[in-house]
Amino acid sequence: MKKKRNVYLKMKTLQEAKQIIFNQFQLSDRLKKELVPVSDAVGRILADPVIAATSSPGFHSAAMDGIAVHAPETYGASEARPKTLSIGKDAFYVNTGHVLPSGTNAVIMIEKVIEQDPPHVVIESPAYPWQNVRKTGEDIVATELLFPRNYEITPYCIGALLSGGIFSVTVKQKPNVLIIPTGSELVDFRRASLEKLQPGQIIESNSLVLGKLTESCNGSYQRHEIIKDDIANIRQAVREAVDGDFHMVLIVGGSSAGSEDYAKDVIADLGQVLVHGVTIMPGKPVIIGEVNSIPVFGIPGYPVSAIIAFEQFVGPLLCRMLGQPERERNTVQVAPTRKIASKLGVEEFLRVKLGVVGERIVATPSF
Amino acid sequence: MKKKRNVYLKMKTLQEAKQIIFNQFQLSDRLKKELVPVSDAVGRILADPVIAATSSPGFHSAAMDGIAVHAPETYGASEARPKTLSIGKDAFYVNTGHVLPSGTNAVIMIEKVIEQDPPHVVIESPAYPWQNVRKTGEDIVATELLFPRNYEITPYCIGALLSGGIFSVTVKQKPNVLIIPTGSELVDFRRASLEKLQPGQIIESNSLVLGKLTESCNGSYQRHEIIKDDIANIRQAVREAVDGDFHMVLIVGGSSAGSEDYAKDVIADLGQVLVHGVTIMPGKPVIIGEVNSIPVFGIPGYPVSAIIAFEQFVGPLLCRMLGQPERERNTVQVAPTRKIASKLGVEEFLRVKLGVVGERIVATPSF
Repeated sequence: MKKKRNVYLKMKTLQEAKQIIFNQFQLSDRLKKELVPVSDAVGRILADPVIAATSSPGFHSAAMDGIAVHAPETYGASEARPKTLSIGKDAFYVNTGHVLPSGTNAVIMIEKVIEQDPPHVVIESPAYPWQNVRKTGEDIVATELLFPRNYEITPYCIGALLSGGIFSVTVKQKPNVLIIPTGSELVDFRRASLEKLQPGQIIESNSLVLGKLTESCNGSYQRHEIIKDDIANIRQAVREAVDGDFHMVLIVGGSSAGSEDYAKDVIADLGQVLVHGVTIMPGKPVIIGEVNSIPVFGIPGYPVSAIIAFEQFVGPLLCRMLGQPERERNTVQVAPTRKIASKLGVEEFLRVKLGVVGERIVATPSF
Repeated sequence: MKKKRNVYLKMKTLQEAKQIIFNQFQLSDRLKKELVPVSDAVGRILADPVIAATSSPGFHSAAMDGIAVHAPETYGASEARPKTLSIGKDAFYVNTGHVLPSGTNAVIMIEKVIEQDPPHVVIESPAYPWQNVRKTGEDIVATELLFPRNYEITPYCIGALLSGGIFSVTVKQKPNVLIIPTGSELVDFRRASLEKLQPGQIIESNSLVLGKLTESCNGSYQRHEIIKDDIANIRQAVREAVDGDFHMVLIVGGSSAGSEDYAKDVIADLGQVLVHGVTIMPGKPVIIGEVNSIPVFGIPGYPVSAIIAFEQFVGPLLCRMLGQPERERNTVQVAPTRKIASKLGVEEFLRVKLGVVGERIVATPSF
């Protein structure tokens, strides 16, 4: 005897569904902190503000190749009345970046230095104090805020961190997502062979797509072995996940209302279903639920629907957990190349091919 | 005795310098091909076009939950004249994704099926052929081009690859960049301690910044130990690099014309200097050279200059090697908050802080 078909809860709009998720999950404190070396920190999100431990430069240094001098001793020099300085006494050769010798406070660039019988050099114009000098702390002053909490470390940050004497940073743990592919028709891509594929069998790909999308949102993922359409096994996997180290669970497939769609029952058995069905296409049969205060999603098995469900719900929730703004896609105004009928009461996501005709960007639906 | 100061070659403009690089290095065939599993292919660049090995779906399948029927047998059904079908004989329960039973060519959605005494069901409207059926090859047809050469694999591609029966792809080797930090004043960040830092010493950070930028351009990098200002050691390191497995060498520091700036001489000794000095600020003292047809750069040691040199020359060259378009930064029109004097004959890159005032975006230089 087959189980009774699911009845959809009242469908929610995209905005309602998002609001339900964001209200339900107060996530800001759920991720642990980790200390990582700066060399491994690119792409990670700061859990604490970072304060410079040292100044950079840590000393007054030459900003030009030339001679370092004490500015007042050059005052009055002119073409009519050149001044002679003595290298090693009141002038010192320096290259860019060199520490300024004690007692000096300006650098005269080498092109303006007339070399005479060593150790003498002649200058024809005066230097003003701190000319061509990078002063201590010009780039970074010890104790200054380098980056605030929730800042995403980029390659550009690395220079400021190291120069500010910071060799490791406290970042947020990556949210860890368990992805459970379900469906008796599925074949594991790691063991698939085209010759042995039977009619009705499908190479499972959603778990890898969703995993890589999770990584692109600064999360990490673990892929569960495929579970056949068996409610007890699916329930067991979800229970273990929420008792374990996961911050989110995606049950992929079986989110619809068919007789072998178990995602909703599993979530209802273990916790609560918040949303079943959103008025978007593709992606309509998505399930949003909660077990042990862990978000558990039922992700539709149709690949395009799975991606839309990720982009509209899972990705934004990962961003929230990490204290990041939602990622905005680039947008562009287009003119459709043919009439596109829209379905009443449904927000549609169309895949289109873009082209340029004259000054307009035109879009042709792919399907 | 100090060596003679370098004399700059005639400075080049940014456009001239780029043209010289792109003319000099015909790079398209320099990278080897690698076969990687699809699960490791995200971010990699295809070395060959990818052709689907199988169709997806590989069979006619139900696009709805319902009953599969042979459409002609339903013709004539209406509310006035309902038709009775027999499950297991001329109607078959199917869920979305199920293979269509042999002899059927349409699916009637379950909501329209009136269940009677088993095994009988009643329908009140006919089905047309292929209604609610995903036909073989609807998404992907075997032998069709999935992705062309030079395509960058994204998470979205993974689904199409696996569904098309592709489990590994031929990608371009990552261009491997040797980064050689030079300078007697430098301290390795992996061994730096703020307490032991002497005046004049600097924590070396450029190599890590440049390395992470290389990775962000789909390259890989190896960091050479810091070399003090010693021309023989720098020459030796460059010679080993161009004889080895590297596709590019960055000598960081010593690219200027100071008495301890050896990058230019090293490149001139081993190969040829193509450009020394570009009319940009920061980044002016960059050196572009060639040794054994390998691009060898002299990158200025001042951190901001190093980044500009990377972004203007090294990054675009990495993109070319990989057959990728140059990365364009997002741009925005701004109003400066104060007068910004520009230097004659120099293209300037200013770091600014952006703000919004009314409807305008305003920019204030950071320095």
